[in-house]
Amino acid sequence: MSEEDSRYYEEVIAKKRMFGGKIFNVDVEQVVLPNGASDIREIVQHHGAVGIMPFTDDGKMIFVRQWRSPLEQETLEIPAGKIDSDEGSDLKEVALREMNEELGLTTDSLEKVTAFFASPGYSNEKLTMFKATNLKKVENKRPLDPDEFLDVEKLSLDEAKAQVKKGAICDSKTIYALTYWELLQAKEK
Amino acid sequence: MSEEDSRYYEEVIAKKRMFGGKIFNVDVEQVVLPNGASDIREIVQHHGAVGIMPFTDDGKMIFVRQWRSPLEQETLEIPAGKIDSDEGSDLKEVALREMNEELGLTTDSLEKVTAFFASPGYSNEKLTMFKATNLKKVENKRPLDPDEFLDVEKLSLDEAKAQVKKGAICDSKTIYALTYWELLQAKEK
Repeated sequence: MSEEDSRYYEEVIAKKRMFGGKIFNVDVEQVVLPNGASDIREIVQHHGAVGIMPFTDDGKMIFVRQWRSPLEQETLEIPAGKIDSDEGSDLKEVALREMNEELGLTTDSLEKVTAFFASPGYSNEKLTMFKATNLKKVENKRPLDPDEFLDVEKLSLDEAKAQVKKGAICDSKTIYALTYWELLQAKEK
Repeated sequence: MSEEDSRYYEEVIAKKRMFGGKIFNVDVEQVVLPNGASDIREIVQHHGAVGIMPFTDDGKMIFVRQWRSPLEQETLEIPAGKIDSDEGSDLKEVALREMNEELGLTTDSLEKVTAFFASPGYSNEKLTMFKATNLKKVENKRPLDPDEFLDVEKLSLDEAKAQVKKGAICDSKTIYALTYWELLQAKEK
């Protein structure tokens, strides 16, 4: 079935770029709804990102602590990074680059776990999630981006849950990561 | 510790509204980084949303099928809805309104499970997740928003996982919901 055959299909009849940024763009589309009425849709255009769940040999996960301007607070999140517009589709390479830059680590055991759109009502940002095990120090660590300031913390699942209660772990990919981690542990029992 | 004491703190020295929409606004902030350098941050300002995981008495979850303009496809998602700017902080009321509008259902068993920021690098959108059980038909169903066209589907966990493989279930709150559901089942065994 082509998308146009969907009985929910909204035909785009006009589109205008309202904001062009370095992280995302904003388009406003004029659409025709299934009942023939006209409406507008506001859309954040984003190249997507990767998130990495780095499991250490001693049963911990690695997080980065950093400032998040939109939240006006420090957070603890799993390592992640935006896909550059020219990076094509090798998301494992993006994940390895971020592990190198943020953690100084690499691995030959990187496995895609899932992928999800962060906020499908108004954004096309897709986050692809990897599980990294068998972690090794890189020989040549790449520098962080010039606007990145972060520290690395290793936490057990219980320690990570305490950081959820404190509000430091508070983002979708990291809350997902902890639930996935707890599921892995529940299945092992 | 106040946020200004954070060693990662970025002081905002200027802010400009670049886009004002009905779903979100976009601000660009000029900030001072921890090393004294200046940079800009692009921020999506959003009032937040609720997501509801509706568990039926026969062990299924309820999803809505709708068109998502940003993804140019149909999706299956758990019911959800934006918080209006004037709704204050009673998120259970927002969740019950969405259950009424989208499903024609209500409950006296609504429990907050978690909350997370969808994309903390550039957005302040916070999604609060509820678990709804003991579902009952409402006596007076509220109409959908005039721009909403959706259908309701009940799926088992295995049926939902098949929809992930098909790409219909593909958003952060619903992928989280399935992982949470699987964790509940694993703990029951």
